[in-house]
Amino acid sequence: MTVRIGVIGTGMIGQDHIRRLTHVITGTEVTAVCDLDTARAEEVAASVGARALPTGGAVIDAADVDAVVVTSWGPTHAEHVLAAIAAGKPVFCEKPLATTAEDCLKIVSAETAHGSRLVQVGFMRRYDAGYREMRQVITSGAIGAPLMVHCAHRNATVPESYTSAMAAQDTAVHEIDVLRWLLDDEIRTVQVLRPRRTSKRYAHLQDPQIMLFETAEGVRIDLEVFVNCQYGYDIQCETVGEEGLVRLPDPAGVAVRSAGRHSTAVLQDWKGRFENAFDTEFREWAETVAAGTEPTGPSAWDGYAATVITDALVQALESGEIVHVDALKERPAFYGGASR
Amino acid sequence: MTVRIGVIGTGMIGQDHIRRLTHVITGTEVTAVCDLDTARAEEVAASVGARALPTGGAVIDAADVDAVVVTSWGPTHAEHVLAAIAAGKPVFCEKPLATTAEDCLKIVSAETAHGSRLVQVGFMRRYDAGYREMRQVITSGAIGAPLMVHCAHRNATVPESYTSAMAAQDTAVHEIDVLRWLLDDEIRTVQVLRPRRTSKRYAHLQDPQIMLFETAEGVRIDLEVFVNCQYGYDIQCETVGEEGLVRLPDPAGVAVRSAGRHSTAVLQDWKGRFENAFDTEFREWAETVAAGTEPTGPSAWDGYAATVITDALVQALESGEIVHVDALKERPAFYGGASR
Amino acid sequence: MTVRIGVIGTGMIGQDHIRRLTHVITGTEVTAVCDLDTARAEEVAASVGARALPTGGAVIDAADVDAVVVTSWGPTHAEHVLAAIAAGKPVFCEKPLATTAEDCLKIVSAETAHGSRLVQVGFMRRYDAGYREMRQVITSGAIGAPLMVHCAHRNATVPESYTSAMAAQDTAVHEIDVLRWLLDDEIRTVQVLRPRRTSKRYAHLQDPQIMLFETAEGVRIDLEVFVNCQYGYDIQCETVGEEGLVRLPDPAGVAVRSAGRHSTAVLQDWKGRFENAFDTEFREWAETVAAGTEPTGPSAWDGYAATVITDALVQALESGEIVHVDALKERPAFYGGASR
Amino acid sequence: MTVRIGVIGTGMIGQDHIRRLTHVITGTEVTAVCDLDTARAEEVAASVGARALPTGGAVIDAADVDAVVVTSWGPTHAEHVLAAIAAGKPVFCEKPLATTAEDCLKIVSAETAHGSRLVQVGFMRRYDAGYREMRQVITSGAIGAPLMVHCAHRNATVPESYTSAMAAQDTAVHEIDVLRWLLDDEIRTVQVLRPRRTSKRYAHLQDPQIMLFETAEGVRIDLEVFVNCQYGYDIQCETVGEEGLVRLPDPAGVAVRSAGRHSTAVLQDWKGRFENAFDTEFREWAETVAAGTEPTGPSAWDGYAATVITDALVQALESGEIVHVDALKERPAFYGGASR
Repeated sequence: MTVRIGVIGTGMIGQDHIRRLTHVITGTEVTAVCDLDTARAEEVAASVGARALPTGGAVIDAADVDAVVVTSWGPTHAEHVLAAIAAGKPVFCEKPLATTAEDCLKIVSAETAHGSRLVQVGFMRRYDAGYREMRQVITSGAIGAPLMVHCAHRNATVPESYTSAMAAQDTAVHEIDVLRWLLDDEIRTVQVLRPRRTSKRYAHLQDPQIMLFETAEGVRIDLEVFVNCQYGYDIQCETVGEEGLVRLPDPAGVAVRSAGRHSTAVLQDWKGRFENAFDTEFREWAETVAAGTEPTGPSAWDGYAATVITDALVQALESGEIVHVDALKERPAFYGGASR
Repeated sequence: MTVRIGVIGTGMIGQDHIRRLTHVITGTEVTAVCDLDTARAEEVAASVGARALPTGGAVIDAADVDAVVVTSWGPTHAEHVLAAIAAGKPVFCEKPLATTAEDCLKIVSAETAHGSRLVQVGFMRRYDAGYREMRQVITSGAIGAPLMVHCAHRNATVPESYTSAMAAQDTAVHEIDVLRWLLDDEIRTVQVLRPRRTSKRYAHLQDPQIMLFETAEGVRIDLEVFVNCQYGYDIQCETVGEEGLVRLPDPAGVAVRSAGRHSTAVLQDWKGRFENAFDTEFREWAETVAAGTEPTGPSAWDGYAATVITDALVQALESGEIVHVDALKERPAFYGGASR
Repeated sequence: MTVRIGVIGTGMIGQDHIRRLTHVITGTEVTAVCDLDTARAEEVAASVGARALPTGGAVIDAADVDAVVVTSWGPTHAEHVLAAIAAGKPVFCEKPLATTAEDCLKIVSAETAHGSRLVQVGFMRRYDAGYREMRQVITSGAIGAPLMVHCAHRNATVPESYTSAMAAQDTAVHEIDVLRWLLDDEIRTVQVLRPRRTSKRYAHLQDPQIMLFETAEGVRIDLEVFVNCQYGYDIQCETVGEEGLVRLPDPAGVAVRSAGRHSTAVLQDWKGRFENAFDTEFREWAETVAAGTEPTGPSAWDGYAATVITDALVQALESGEIVHVDALKERPAFYGGASR
Repeated sequence: MTVRIGVIGTGMIGQDHIRRLTHVITGTEVTAVCDLDTARAEEVAASVGARALPTGGAVIDAADVDAVVVTSWGPTHAEHVLAAIAAGKPVFCEKPLATTAEDCLKIVSAETAHGSRLVQVGFMRRYDAGYREMRQVITSGAIGAPLMVHCAHRNATVPESYTSAMAAQDTAVHEIDVLRWLLDDEIRTVQVLRPRRTSKRYAHLQDPQIMLFETAEGVRIDLEVFVNCQYGYDIQCETVGEEGLVRLPDPAGVAVRSAGRHSTAVLQDWKGRFENAFDTEFREWAETVAAGTEPTGPSAWDGYAATVITDALVQALESGEIVHVDALKERPAFYGGASR
């Protein structure tokens, strides 16, 4: 039984997910799409045998849409997710869940009122084989209780439109989600250090940044965000526990010896790095939709937490101060409950 | 447009391919199956909504079968592949193409008479990301002309039914295919060395073996086959060229430091190692079937070559002598032509 | 022409240096030693054919002592170093140069008044092959201007007598010296984070600690100090520049595959890690003594800087605040000059 | 008490050993040297305060020479070693012990008649930290009984004077010695394969070569010798046992990420690779001389074995046949005894 999916937003990431739902994942088909750019929506729809509808609401309400994927412009996410909840349909929303904590809370309230989980947020790292193996090692107890995590998130370059706040909102947000999940712990304080800026990019941009987190359990996390590192796309994560440590692998690639060097290629692009994670993410989500069960991925509460924490990071970057993230202290029972 | 596939043989590997064609690959569905064990065929068919038919011939001839996958017992491969060619239907045949060189040649003749390629043989390593990157490096000229290849093919253990000849037929056969493709070269001589046997396994088995190949271009290949190495499943390949070398990566996995060691896990199973390769193999094959074009994977000639070379290895193991593989000198124009 | 050396202090480290000066380094001999424990001094002296003298002053003034090595208890260092300067003899002083910044400054003043460098402080990491190669890469410009450094300094365990302040004074002090030298830059601020403590050790001890430094050039350094990490002795250092990064190697050791793991040993002891560095340190120092030239290793100013910065770290650990290290702003011309 | 050493031959390697005995190793001094090029001998002698004597015999007989180092032209080794034995003085002879098996046997006989070991042959790999750790792993039983060894010996380039026979005599000879020692086993047969030749070098030279050995215990060794590999100096060795394998490490060096590659340098020179091994070799040898005990390094019998096996390799290269090395079957009791 094929899951029929409506996709709101047919930009680059939307098209990539439509391709994935059509050609990579079995058991799913895209039946309806919409976009502010209606010509683009028509074209994309035609390419996969779907209908282009005028609005997100029309997509959500369509009788041949079992579940919704929201990949439109960030500020419109909340509206579509709330409408999907109102319609009682499962909804996969690309990050951010909403651009304000307030809107995230509205979604949390609506979903809670609905009585079962409908929302999954698109944080794909939880589906990466390396992070999953790392989580297994941590939960197995092999390295003892986690004490520290050292991370780096590096991109070769970013366009001029990238702002200093986006280092938190667009870049670090991935580590925020995956670390909360890896450690099964909540972030309590954030701080941002401003290293000497690279001269290779825009004067307006604080790049790199070092972000410091403290969790409820006292784990200390340092995260280097460096989005113009020139040499490639590079994700590092090392969790240090009481008895050992576990480190994310670099992607496998052939080793070459020539001209006096032993070398392997560094990826240039996040797509290559997390392609498999995206596939697994949608495959597992679609399985829950097909089974009529609750989604098992990042929840609306996780989406809310990510927004609250990235807001705090932006504030910390500007103020230079430690910012407390007290809003997350009381996690509702509906979302695994128990305050920390 | 979905490609409808008939599967002959519903044993372990057949079931795995049926799962793949049903749940992993998009654009394919299994419509008919058969097996000597008709109860098993019925059960497997029911699980994917296919019909169980009494014979391979019935599967091949079924109107709702666009293409055939042969995963039955090796000695029956030739019969089914020939029938598929006679029916003008694309056929994917698990290795071996046939258990005798003679039968392989019959298939080559039949396909040549048919006038276009219909047969693909299931050598999945050509679809492994590491081998593909290695081939790219070689063909780019980055390491100069290849001169030597050092390989190892290790399994943790094998069952007692595994024979010394199977080291060539079941194990080394994968290297034979992938090396011919990697180097775009043909094997001319084979030799087998008998190291001291491991005491960890069966008295009847020569394990490990070292196989030596010389190609038409003079490249020397050494291949360690060690199927009871105890520690895991481990595939190594290093091509040394005039100006450098390229080495297959180990599978990526998290690194752990604990108890005085820095370590990563070694896979225990070939399935984990080549899962992605199997998926890509079937995805690319199904695309050619859907497009009505010739398959791009290992050909009937490659299947013939593999059988001729494994036969020579078995002979070399027994005699201790260098065995010449002259049968492959004249590759028909139909298969990329030009003798070497 | 053999350099005749007097050694003040014949404890564990003193004995190790006496062994080195006698049996490892050519061109040096130990002619006089002293220790509060006169019996030990006698015994050590006898073992290498030296005389045991009653006091450090006697060693320094001895006619057959060309140069002095101070390895006595830290609080006595200043007195001996000042006496050696007064005697106009080259003096190698184990870290710390002195236990107070005030005493360090007295040494700086005395040496400056003397008019040429006589003092070298025993920070051996500058002599480690890995750090030297890293410095070469940085100064070559291959990674662009340095922006960040990520470090870890881990010991398997420490004895109960180890205090939280010693994380700075005894442990991080090595990174402080080597980073100032690696970057050719000065530390301006320090901060200490307190992660969740390991439960594997003493209640009195804050372990691990994360130390944060900012340099005059704006480079940000994070240093994990974890002295009860259980798994081994592990030194990590990665410098990230505008165009690339350079990372210290792990010590070379054989790789073993067995029982499902690919692994290498982690050293258990700092001696094995820096044995070669110690040898090179003394060899190069002895060469300057033999040549009658100024020492080229860490200077009295570097010793002063290390003490000022470790003092600041201890203060930062207690207060939780960022501590400014303004005392180092004006480096005297005598020590390479130019304030930063 | 300083060991006084006479050095016969002051060419490049002789000068390097004189430097080592003078400036690196403690407890040794060079008191007498000689060379056919008397001007060179005078110059070298003057630089270290030694005398230049007219002949090797004069060096051996000199009253101020406790032990002899022979680094003259290979064909003269036997004469000097025999003279040293006749004089009852310890003698360290650079490889080869002698250029003919016959001369090696004369030395073996003379030493046996003398009644205690006086001769050590200069195979330095036994003193390399990596090989020593590998041997420890093997003898610990951690990988079970050895079954196979895979080796490579690669040089960036060689001069035109290098001949195909030198691949055995000058290059593989190091592996021959170290493998006999690693495995505590004897080589029984040799075979040489001729891969396609590199076009990057001389027409007269068979480069690369693959050498195959079988030991008394049935261990199979393959050794790639490739002396114009262009990219650097590279030594590989992997021993595969019944339960696991152990692999020689690459030399430690910093890792750099830049311009899309993660890379480490490959050494260009054997001196850098085995510098520490040479130092350890002479240090341990000098200790036995000083102690008046028998040398513990490679014996005259090992030197004889190396010559017999390299002779067999040259014969195997020319004939293409397997050559048996039966001469080594009966190891005299004097040399650890027990035939294999």
